[in-house]
Amino acid sequence: MATARRMAIMTDGFNDAFTAKTAICLLRYRPDEVVAVLDRQSAGKSAQEVFGAGGSIPCVGSLADAAGANTFVVGIAPPGGKIPPHWHPIILEAIARKMTVVSGLHEFLRDDPEFYKAAAVHGVQLIDIRDNDERDVAQRVGLRDDCLRIHTIANDCSCGKMVASVELADGLKRSGVDAAFVATGQTGILVAGGGCPIDRVIADFVTGAAEKLVLANQHHEVIVVEGQGSLFHPRYSCVTLGLLHGLMPDGLILCYEMGRDTVMGMEDVSLPSLEKVVEFYEAAANIMHPCRVIGVAVNGLRFSDRDVDDECEQVSRRLGLPACDVIRHGPAKLVEAVTELQKTRKKQR
Amino acid sequence: MATARRMAIMTDGFNDAFTAKTAICLLRYRPDEVVAVLDRQSAGKSAQEVFGAGGSIPCVGSLADAAGANTFVVGIAPPGGKIPPHWHPIILEAIARKMTVVSGLHEFLRDDPEFYKAAAVHGVQLIDIRDNDERDVAQRVGLRDDCLRIHTIANDCSCGKMVASVELADGLKRSGVDAAFVATGQTGILVAGGGCPIDRVIADFVTGAAEKLVLANQHHEVIVVEGQGSLFHPRYSCVTLGLLHGLMPDGLILCYEMGRDTVMGMEDVSLPSLEKVVEFYEAAANIMHPCRVIGVAVNGLRFSDRDVDDECEQVSRRLGLPACDVIRHGPAKLVEAVTELQKTRKKQR
Repeated sequence: MATARRMAIMTDGFNDAFTAKTAICLLRYRPDEVVAVLDRQSAGKSAQEVFGAGGSIPCVGSLADAAGANTFVVGIAPPGGKIPPHWHPIILEAIARKMTVVSGLHEFLRDDPEFYKAAAVHGVQLIDIRDNDERDVAQRVGLRDDCLRIHTIANDCSCGKMVASVELADGLKRSGVDAAFVATGQTGILVAGGGCPIDRVIADFVTGAAEKLVLANQHHEVIVVEGQGSLFHPRYSCVTLGLLHGLMPDGLILCYEMGRDTVMGMEDVSLPSLEKVVEFYEAAANIMHPCRVIGVAVNGLRFSDRDVDDECEQVSRRLGLPACDVIRHGPAKLVEAVTELQKTRKKQR
Repeated sequence: MATARRMAIMTDGFNDAFTAKTAICLLRYRPDEVVAVLDRQSAGKSAQEVFGAGGSIPCVGSLADAAGANTFVVGIAPPGGKIPPHWHPIILEAIARKMTVVSGLHEFLRDDPEFYKAAAVHGVQLIDIRDNDERDVAQRVGLRDDCLRIHTIANDCSCGKMVASVELADGLKRSGVDAAFVATGQTGILVAGGGCPIDRVIADFVTGAAEKLVLANQHHEVIVVEGQGSLFHPRYSCVTLGLLHGLMPDGLILCYEMGRDTVMGMEDVSLPSLEKVVEFYEAAANIMHPCRVIGVAVNGLRFSDRDVDDECEQVSRRLGLPACDVIRHGPAKLVEAVTELQKTRKKQR
């Protein structure tokens, strides 16, 4: 039997909501598996205080204070995708403590000669979540129409697609639907315990890898597949379209962050109107399979309850779609939209 | 000084216009560098007879008959992307003859232990054209507006984007424009002697790699960048959008093969109307940069001169765009469309 995962998650000062996404989502969705957050600047505080999730899980200043942890998780997605050099000694310490080391960065742990050698010496496993050997093109064979395929999309990266997907799948399960969250990014894979790091797949095989995710999960009534990037993102639109065309979703959930007007990290690139986002995604999706946007997940992180309520009401009226902030309001409106679509599709079969 | 490339190109029975694309394009655009085509079934015939290009270059039955060749080229793109097993002995023979071996397939030569060992023993270079270490995201910094970016697009894969690009760039040069063909696929790279195997790049870095192609070539007045796949292709749309968004073209040339109604190799997937192709590509391109389709390259390979003339006239009227078959008619109409766009853009600056 596999040993249960008991994680120490390192953030070490990179604890804003975007850079520490991996840590925050593990604290939110897998708190039972988290022993401590290694964040030297916040040692002594609780995870809840620092990250807004994780309750009383402690922030600690050294691995010695994370007793019982057997897994060291790189909990950040730093700009540039590289492990900060000053983290090297602590990762080597984790290896020496015989902890499994897990990273979702593009730069692989095993490609660092020091880590590689230390892991061999201590018999420790280095897990690079983005590593994959996807080499199959899409075949469009074997997709079942009795599994409803839902996919989260967005106007930008890092605006809550993974969270919306997890919350929606959980909401569907609570309402009695056999639903599954399907992960396509490093954080989602850590939360779900499986999935495909789609942005690391060789371009020719992205749709093939997406299709395989469907084939592997379509025994569920509904799958909610996490989106990546955005068709409007100057860097990642390629990943987004490959995923969209490989999944051939029936319904899309549009995610966006309230108050964001420009592409994150590329402030001279404006974001389009939500109407245009809906129009272009539907055009792109319908090339492969009949599909429409069925709901909106508003990420109101930086706003008050009242402002978020107003935004949801306004955007719902503008787009003619149900809208909610899944963290504040729960996913009920989106659950309803999915079950409605499910009924429509059943009638069409 | 580097030794001049003297190629023996292997096709060995895979000599239809699509599978032998690499061989045919080298025969057409680099005949001076081709010593022979190794095609055991066609030994004794001329390349012209078998491939419709290459004039009197002989088809031979063994490497012994390709005297003076120093480079062995895998001249096919077989279904599945793997080197046919019965080719192994002849590739080992090429290595033993101290020939450089070149392949553009997804399966790398150097990952075959037999080839790897033999190459080491004989001090021979194995060149995997698709190999790359692209690891940069797009930055949108440094793009010059005094270089006109032209990009070939299509409704499907394998319908003449590379040929249209080469012919258009050559036509522009003949008319006195400082133009360059920029390669993005294995055949184009062999013809041009450089470029980026974009479909083999990790998905997150496709737009970054495309952008680098622009930065490296924008000292020319006009660049004509070869397209890959199609936004309508169930397998390769990811590659196509990454390229389109990374290049940020000013003008697009739409390519299609006359008489093709379904996706090549996926006969149950219908191709959309050309009007829809133009509309969706323009919508996708304009997300990043003002761009429109300025001409049509009709591939009339399987039709008579008269039928192709009629088709060009009809499609030109339907789409309101100049249309020609660059092989039959030459690229003059497309050259004119590019120089017109160049004038318009100059006025706008």
